[in-house]
Amino acid sequence: MNGNHEDRKVPAQALGKQSIRFINPVYCIGSASVVGKKEGEGPLRDLFDVILEDDMNGCNSWEEAESTLQRDAVSTLLQKSEIRSENVRYLFGGDLLGQSIASTFGLLSFEIPYIGLYGACSTCGLSLSMGSMAVAGGFAENVICVTSSHFASAEKEFRFPLSYGNQRPLSATWTVTGSGAFLLSSSKKTGVHAAITGITTGKIVDYGLKDSMNMGACMAPAAADTILQHMKDFHAKPADYDKIITGDLGEVGKTALQDLLLQKDIDLSEQYMDCGIEIFDDDTQDTHSGGSGCGCSAVVLSALILRQIERGIWKKVLFVPTGALLSKISFNEGKSVPGIAHAVVIESC
Amino acid sequence: MNGNHEDRKVPAQALGKQSIRFINPVYCIGSASVVGKKEGEGPLRDLFDVILEDDMNGCNSWEEAESTLQRDAVSTLLQKSEIRSENVRYLFGGDLLGQSIASTFGLLSFEIPYIGLYGACSTCGLSLSMGSMAVAGGFAENVICVTSSHFASAEKEFRFPLSYGNQRPLSATWTVTGSGAFLLSSSKKTGVHAAITGITTGKIVDYGLKDSMNMGACMAPAAADTILQHMKDFHAKPADYDKIITGDLGEVGKTALQDLLLQKDIDLSEQYMDCGIEIFDDDTQDTHSGGSGCGCSAVVLSALILRQIERGIWKKVLFVPTGALLSKISFNEGKSVPGIAHAVVIESC
Repeated sequence: MNGNHEDRKVPAQALGKQSIRFINPVYCIGSASVVGKKEGEGPLRDLFDVILEDDMNGCNSWEEAESTLQRDAVSTLLQKSEIRSENVRYLFGGDLLGQSIASTFGLLSFEIPYIGLYGACSTCGLSLSMGSMAVAGGFAENVICVTSSHFASAEKEFRFPLSYGNQRPLSATWTVTGSGAFLLSSSKKTGVHAAITGITTGKIVDYGLKDSMNMGACMAPAAADTILQHMKDFHAKPADYDKIITGDLGEVGKTALQDLLLQKDIDLSEQYMDCGIEIFDDDTQDTHSGGSGCGCSAVVLSALILRQIERGIWKKVLFVPTGALLSKISFNEGKSVPGIAHAVVIESC
Repeated sequence: MNGNHEDRKVPAQALGKQSIRFINPVYCIGSASVVGKKEGEGPLRDLFDVILEDDMNGCNSWEEAESTLQRDAVSTLLQKSEIRSENVRYLFGGDLLGQSIASTFGLLSFEIPYIGLYGACSTCGLSLSMGSMAVAGGFAENVICVTSSHFASAEKEFRFPLSYGNQRPLSATWTVTGSGAFLLSSSKKTGVHAAITGITTGKIVDYGLKDSMNMGACMAPAAADTILQHMKDFHAKPADYDKIITGDLGEVGKTALQDLLLQKDIDLSEQYMDCGIEIFDDDTQDTHSGGSGCGCSAVVLSALILRQIERGIWKKVLFVPTGALLSKISFNEGKSVPGIAHAVVIESC
């Protein structure tokens, strides 16, 4: 990656108000997923790279366990991709914990320049967006994007420690224990068939909802805003995509999103799916509205979505992780729960 | 910003392991600083744009007050720069609070695509780095980078609420109540004389220190690592800079940094200063080791450093905000306090 790139063409086109089209695609040349026990018993069980036997992963705290998810996801990715960490120019990472400590302690051993991101459960989309910019802009040949969440550390961070045994309403989602890591590159590798070709960066959208046990409803307006803007900026329609996939709206948010977009004459019914709904089987796993967390969209992207694209089953996907921008403090102080959603176009190539 | 940029040259050169040189400089066409009462009584009192009469700024909570700092910094910047928010393509923002809620609630009213960053007190450097990449890569014409901290919300977040009246050791720093915002642009404006010409992105550096009341010592190794790598990547020496300025190492960290670099034959004594030491007068303001927080480096950059560069008094500055990557939870669980530092080269132009 040394050397002067003055002679390379700028491979990007800013579209409309919030989008970028990458003229030279950013190749996703590898990915890895690490999940907890419950996720490993769900419908996607055969697709994950690593399934933990115990969600503590040999650690003394939930936070430390979450760190090991990121560490293991990046290690697995480096191994699968046969690339050394010295050849990765940036790590774009994030998680849901206060001050992103899962990323700090999970990623420090790699000694790769680190860009910490926070977009709540949308962080996977944010990391892919910023990683793509770094690669497409000619600032890096290879970057890794990684995010995680952990059911136990998230419940403690946002609601109550598990040992309190609090009840969960049916609108609540179940934070996924898992981490997904992605290797983005300016060079195509043999056998690689997935590339990021565009992004739409979301705005903070606040409908004034305050129920932290109904994140789907809080995030749906942001997902609608980003998808609508994406369609405008790219002059696209839902039929241009094989799938339009949100991160973790769950059952409640899914309905809200589709209703909001129908009001704008955008009908997602043919293409829509949600990572949070795919990852668990609510009939047998009792996860209520579905999975959530910035590990949720990341592991589903790695295990399911990229696999379908790699195989050419899906040619073009709009991946839209969604985040609820609250903290325990903002919630306790009576603030609303604004949402944000970052869309990434992934195509087979 | 619409239109095809295929014909533009990529204006960046990746240097060494961690650095980028922007061949086309990224202009800093405006900045704004908003500070609290105590900061407004310190040595830089005459240089800030807005000084609050009351650190609650008319709000009901410290967190809400911190949000208004970011809101007011961005509003002041837009006003000073005579630019409308629709013409700003991205907001790169962050703060120290869990889940970055000061940024969420402070920035939502601007309706600008938002990229949330977390680098603890280094976030100002991180935001300028990522903002510069977005501009230099041709992804945006104008972006705003904004960070904040607030003494009362930070004490509550990392140590104890103020009403507990806990004692502070002499090694402790005083979190600055303030927010600084910067408008970066690909186009030079009449009267603008400051530009970002390079960056060195830091790694997470952990020397195993655990004292959250001595952040300076925790962060000094990261600052040393980034400055050393910067000098290698750019084939530079301290004398190439008029000033080398860390974010908030304070008195303890300042000594540690200089000692660490002297061991590598880098002598900063001629050029070195620290924003945390500049912002308060310890003799009269009782701030112990100095100021800290990602508002500290941001407001000193806006009020003092850019002013000196604009006037041509300093031609070339290496600005190195430093961050301590801990949370109340990681601290209480006995983890170390790793550091990170992101360097930005700012030149008069």
